[in-house]
Amino acid sequence: MKITKEETVTLLKQNDKFAIICHSEPDGDTLGSGYALCRALQKLGKRAKVICEDKIPSNYGFFKSIIVDDDFNPEYVVSADLADESLLGEFEETYGGKIDLSIDHHISNTDYAKNTLFEAAAATAEIIYELIKLLKVEIDCEIAKSLYAGIATDTGCFRFSNTTKQSHLIAAELMNFDFNLGELNFSLFEFKSKRRIMIETAMIKRLEYYFNGKVVVTSLSKTILDMAKGEDISGISSIPRRIEGVELSITFKEQEPNIWKVSMRSNTYVNVQNICAAFDGGGHAKAAGCRIKGIFEECRDNILSEVEKHL
Amino acid sequence: MKITKEETVTLLKQNDKFAIICHSEPDGDTLGSGYALCRALQKLGKRAKVICEDKIPSNYGFFKSIIVDDDFNPEYVVSADLADESLLGEFEETYGGKIDLSIDHHISNTDYAKNTLFEAAAATAEIIYELIKLLKVEIDCEIAKSLYAGIATDTGCFRFSNTTKQSHLIAAELMNFDFNLGELNFSLFEFKSKRRIMIETAMIKRLEYYFNGKVVVTSLSKTILDMAKGEDISGISSIPRRIEGVELSITFKEQEPNIWKVSMRSNTYVNVQNICAAFDGGGHAKAAGCRIKGIFEECRDNILSEVEKHL
Repeated sequence: MKITKEETVTLLKQNDKFAIICHSEPDGDTLGSGYALCRALQKLGKRAKVICEDKIPSNYGFFKSIIVDDDFNPEYVVSADLADESLLGEFEETYGGKIDLSIDHHISNTDYAKNTLFEAAAATAEIIYELIKLLKVEIDCEIAKSLYAGIATDTGCFRFSNTTKQSHLIAAELMNFDFNLGELNFSLFEFKSKRRIMIETAMIKRLEYYFNGKVVVTSLSKTILDMAKGEDISGISSIPRRIEGVELSITFKEQEPNIWKVSMRSNTYVNVQNICAAFDGGGHAKAAGCRIKGIFEECRDNILSEVEKHL
Repeated sequence: MKITKEETVTLLKQNDKFAIICHSEPDGDTLGSGYALCRALQKLGKRAKVICEDKIPSNYGFFKSIIVDDDFNPEYVVSADLADESLLGEFEETYGGKIDLSIDHHISNTDYAKNTLFEAAAATAEIIYELIKLLKVEIDCEIAKSLYAGIATDTGCFRFSNTTKQSHLIAAELMNFDFNLGELNFSLFEFKSKRRIMIETAMIKRLEYYFNGKVVVTSLSKTILDMAKGEDISGISSIPRRIEGVELSITFKEQEPNIWKVSMRSNTYVNVQNICAAFDGGGHAKAAGCRIKGIFEECRDNILSEVEKHL
């Protein structure tokens, strides 16, 4: 059931022993939202903890210091930034069908929770900011840092078209707190592991241009991907799209020998969701994916035949 | 002479036929400041034009449409974002010693103009924003886009530690105008020319690590650099600094055979200005440069001997 921010605040005030779940392969928004809400609830005198199936990537390591560790059997389960229960990962067995409250900004939210607070904000952290205001919890440096990390992550540090006036106004308020912005943004956006450098170089070496340079194809072998951690390949499919003259980029990632995860990104007019649908995939108009089996050259040619219809 | 914003506004109101000079190798802040001020003066009924020694890089091409072209003999010369007259480039002959007003945020401004409005803002565009408010010119979509481009450029799209609460508050106001934020930021920050990709790959191939990986050295030959336009190498020296474990990056650019421009970037504790000073160079604590002559390996070893004293 969809509920309002005010109703959400009532539920948060009425309940205790909160487990706040972040999605698998966690990013700055799910973690920033989860940790900020957890700390706010603790400041209200409630017991709360953040849980996540996956290990927190090393560039988000600072989140751990933001809350007081607490262990208890949860009585009220909140998901932060989870569009679908499949993003619970291995927690799906324990928590599937048992989420009391979903706080989310994904329009694709599948309404899996007893109650859902959905707002079309740039980041779930913006919704958490509003809730913390309504809960009358004073924002402190740790909450500010968490909320900032969430908003910055999902707006590409205020770069993407989803960034709103409200994103900047919240950021302006959070700047009152001395959380070392430069260092935080370096770890969120600039830091590159040596493996990341190696993988980017491998991708670039394998660039192939088609249709007068409007389409670029690249691939990453299983050997290379097996060396990578999540943070080494996060957002990697968006890199070839940035090249001069490219409208559509296609990245083949070899998951098993001859099984390819294909990620497509477009810049302006090509709807990649429609292309991926022809291979039983899906996603959004400018970012979609599918799976395909076979040797690379054949898979690539199959995909390119479909692409040609959509250029 | 240092003057206040209010005194600057009086000068702008009293004068006419403005030439607004942007610095050589123009970036988003000098262009955004220059074009926003020019349009604001034109909206006050004054004649004004923007001049720049160098061609405007293609990813800043949109600036040209922001003002009405006008040609006249200037009576009042303003420089926007120019710390020193040497940045006039070939205009130094014509305008050296003749700048009436310098509007700038560089603390290193050499006070070369008759009057200087200096503020320690994140971007000169933030100062221009204040002036436009005081001039009571209504901000429109074109001015908003120019100011945004200036602030976004110099703050690394709100990423760098120079970003302030004020930067976000101004951005929030500029977001009231519909200037296609996503497209603008793509052209400012994401677009990569094919030459840029080639140059980045060449840089990465030549990475050498020293002092347990704390120092990384790379080099670009004259052959490669001769193929590049300004936009292909802009900010390129900051790339190796982003690698895991690196404190200090050193990029050698071959300007003439065996004449190297050396760019140093540090992350936290090394003062690169002090290292470069030993080679008659200069700059800031975390970004500095110098020139050195000789074959690469010798120059590199000379620099590394000096670096060792500062680690």
